Amino acid sequence: MKTSKKINLNEKEMPGKWYNIQADMPNKIQPLLHPGTKQPIQPGDLEALFPLELIKQEMSPERFIEIPDQVADLYRIYRPTPVHRAYNLEKALDTPAKIYFKNESVSPPGSHKPNTAIPQAYYNYKQGIKKMTTETGAGQWGSALSFATNFFGIECKVFMVKVSFNQKPYRKSMMQLWNGSVIPSPSMETQAGRAFLAEDPNCPGSLGIAISEAIEVAATHDDTMYSLGSVLNHVMLHQTIIGLEAEKQMEMAGDFPDLIIGPFGGGSNFGGLSFPFLRHNFTGGKKTRCIAVEAASCPKLTKGKFEYDFGDTAGMTPLIPMYTLGHKFIPPEIHAGGLRYHGAGAIISQLLKDGLIEARSVDQQESFGAAVAFARTEGLIPAPETAHAIAQVIREAKIAREEGIAKTILFNFSGHGLLDMSAYDQYFSLGNGSTAAHQEALLGQLINA
Amino acid sequence: MKTSKKINLNEKEMPGKWYNIQADMPNKIQPLLHPGTKQPIQPGDLEALFPLELIKQEMSPERFIEIPDQVADLYRIYRPTPVHRAYNLEKALDTPAKIYFKNESVSPPGSHKPNTAIPQAYYNYKQGIKKMTTETGAGQWGSALSFATNFFGIECKVFMVKVSFNQKPYRKSMMQLWNGSVIPSPSMETQAGRAFLAEDPNCPGSLGIAISEAIEVAATHDDTMYSLGSVLNHVMLHQTIIGLEAEKQMEMAGDFPDLIIGPFGGGSNFGGLSFPFLRHNFTGGKKTRCIAVEAASCPKLTKGKFEYDFGDTAGMTPLIPMYTLGHKFIPPEIHAGGLRYHGAGAIISQLLKDGLIEARSVDQQESFGAAVAFARTEGLIPAPETAHAIAQVIREAKIAREEGIAKTILFNFSGHGLLDMSAYDQYFSLGNGSTAAHQEALLGQLINA
Repeated sequence: MKTSKKINLNEKEMPGKWYNIQADMPNKIQPLLHPGTKQPIQPGDLEALFPLELIKQEMSPERFIEIPDQVADLYRIYRPTPVHRAYNLEKALDTPAKIYFKNESVSPPGSHKPNTAIPQAYYNYKQGIKKMTTETGAGQWGSALSFATNFFGIECKVFMVKVSFNQKPYRKSMMQLWNGSVIPSPSMETQAGRAFLAEDPNCPGSLGIAISEAIEVAATHDDTMYSLGSVLNHVMLHQTIIGLEAEKQMEMAGDFPDLIIGPFGGGSNFGGLSFPFLRHNFTGGKKTRCIAVEAASCPKLTKGKFEYDFGDTAGMTPLIPMYTLGHKFIPPEIHAGGLRYHGAGAIISQLLKDGLIEARSVDQQESFGAAVAFARTEGLIPAPETAHAIAQVIREAKIAREEGIAKTILFNFSGHGLLDMSAYDQYFSLGNGSTAAHQEALLGQLINA
Repeated sequence: MKTSKKINLNEKEMPGKWYNIQADMPNKIQPLLHPGTKQPIQPGDLEALFPLELIKQEMSPERFIEIPDQVADLYRIYRPTPVHRAYNLEKALDTPAKIYFKNESVSPPGSHKPNTAIPQAYYNYKQGIKKMTTETGAGQWGSALSFATNFFGIECKVFMVKVSFNQKPYRKSMMQLWNGSVIPSPSMETQAGRAFLAEDPNCPGSLGIAISEAIEVAATHDDTMYSLGSVLNHVMLHQTIIGLEAEKQMEMAGDFPDLIIGPFGGGSNFGGLSFPFLRHNFTGGKKTRCIAVEAASCPKLTKGKFEYDFGDTAGMTPLIPMYTLGHKFIPPEIHAGGLRYHGAGAIISQLLKDGLIEARSVDQQESFGAAVAFARTEGLIPAPETAHAIAQVIREAKIAREEGIAKTILFNFSGHGLLDMSAYDQYFSLGNGSTAAHQEALLGQLINA
């Protein structure tokens, strides 16, 4: 039997702490600014939106932060997650590269998002909070937060980007099953929503708009807190459990990634996998190239500007020092709803500015071609967001073939596409075929392109 | 930290052989009869439908049969699967019972079905077969076979029961993604299909009808073989990998099941989990009660007759000695499409007749109540079929509470319901509520009922 196909950790090997990259970054991030005064925000400024413990984590200089027992206990519903070796894809691509992926799709909501939803719900619960609001694009985040708040008896209201609300009815059902309530955004429930609808009654919505709505509800209700599924430092912190596990698993495989690839919306899955490896780059240990892959139609990292900008469209959040397309940018209606965000987190932006990570973009057509090739070789069906990472993996595997270098690639299989099947239907209906002949053609294309 | 929540095997501990219960049954099954001559069928009679290796397995007296390397290799995409301890459900039910479940939903198609789809595709491939046909109810089986045949370059044609074809569009998309072609049944493609449509143009279809169509295509095309996802002995054989793994995992947990529960359509997931444990009953070892749970609207085990009957509606299969509602029975259009089958496998039927296993039925309303309770306590969303087993688990956990007995229950979480969310929507739309108050009421009901 060849090398192991799946590298599993047992529960006792699950990391007991999250890793905080802020402790090790060569250049620290610039401070968030208060939207009114333009002065660095103080912890107190965030107390209307977040519980104290999360504010502390947001600004913490500590290298490692303990995972509470109740959080670890809920993590164990689906964690540790496996690392797979993609032998079939390697073979189809005829590449000397070794391709591994961390499979975060095994969580009940189907993505990496519960890694931060669970601790966020937990810290709100500890502070006695009974209601939370959030936004969601394709629904991965909203379903993860509903999944998590349900365990703590917290009511969860989710503003779901309207185009995704219509495209992904099953994700909405999932949230409702877990006691979440779901509102298509922009909505008439908030001042921000009403303003966007007044401007364009057919507005498809965006993550930026949905964030404005969710924040407004939290800011105007004393009993309600807000929760964000990406971008912020504490979100990245929680997601590092992905990379910390993967580090152990790569060691078990007797390998180390030369290259880490993750899809990029606001940074949470990419940061979660890459930060624990990046730390070795900073400390003079092994070197890993880390590539964030964004949607070509929402190219903040590859074509945006580094500047202070709002995290939401209405301009209610603190000003964040980040790569951005401008907070008024409304991305085209691509299937990868999770990548439809105008900005990037402050940590990721600083790392990119300092040349410590890289960014690439992939268009929708290429991403689905890669997703189909992956589903037909490895058997797993990727989420449209994840498909962007796979497209970049295929590009890199081809380069490895051309160069004849057996590099080791690790990517984040951040979510499955079982609730995105209509997107695949549409891809096929656009003349992309669905026959065995197409498969051969597709892989032939992959191999010879 | 309390006892482990998930018991994982590593790849090296995956069983290398399937278990054949025919070697140990106190009373052997009666022979299948030829539909024409009514004489016991000979291996040669099946050669138009199945490859030789599967025919051999169907009739084998061997206790253990080796799993081929290429099959084991594909199993390792998702196997070994975890056993979970359902602490939250236990707590919600305030029961002294310990509840474990084997999680077969982690396979890419989302159910236990690939356990037999992979070896069936493999043995066909070894015999040089290029085309296969099959039937599917809710689509779990059809997607599993498409998933498997795709790896071996075999074309797969799936007759999908029309009511499910309309209810579950995403399962159809999944099959197409894996290169399967999907035809709503009854169809105009076969003589059998045309006859059913002539009788009733609005015929919703049934597994029995779809089997007739798939067999007709295989029987009338030299290059095409047929594949069945349940009922037959070789299918049960392949599924025993579930119970063989679970046996090791229960030992790791320091426990042994007093009670095994599985949903019941044709017997494959129930047999797969229970047979390896039943063997100890036969040989005077530990005793485990095994309960098959069928849909109340399709009650072959609890209300059917034990007699020779056809496996399909048109009467093309051999006559099978089994519990049946009659091969002309067309079940109501419940969401659990996989349970809409008029008969049961010969082995299961013999075991039930001999009092060695038990059967219960659950109606759709009770099954969805159980599924919602499970999704809200354990976080995983059950397939409608699986929900039937969960309803019985809840009944048994309540009995344990009344009797004050800490019995150990193991059930088969045979599939997830992510592609069945519309069924949940319908359950809620029927006035079953979806608020936190409902959750409390529901669990209150579970606890006090």
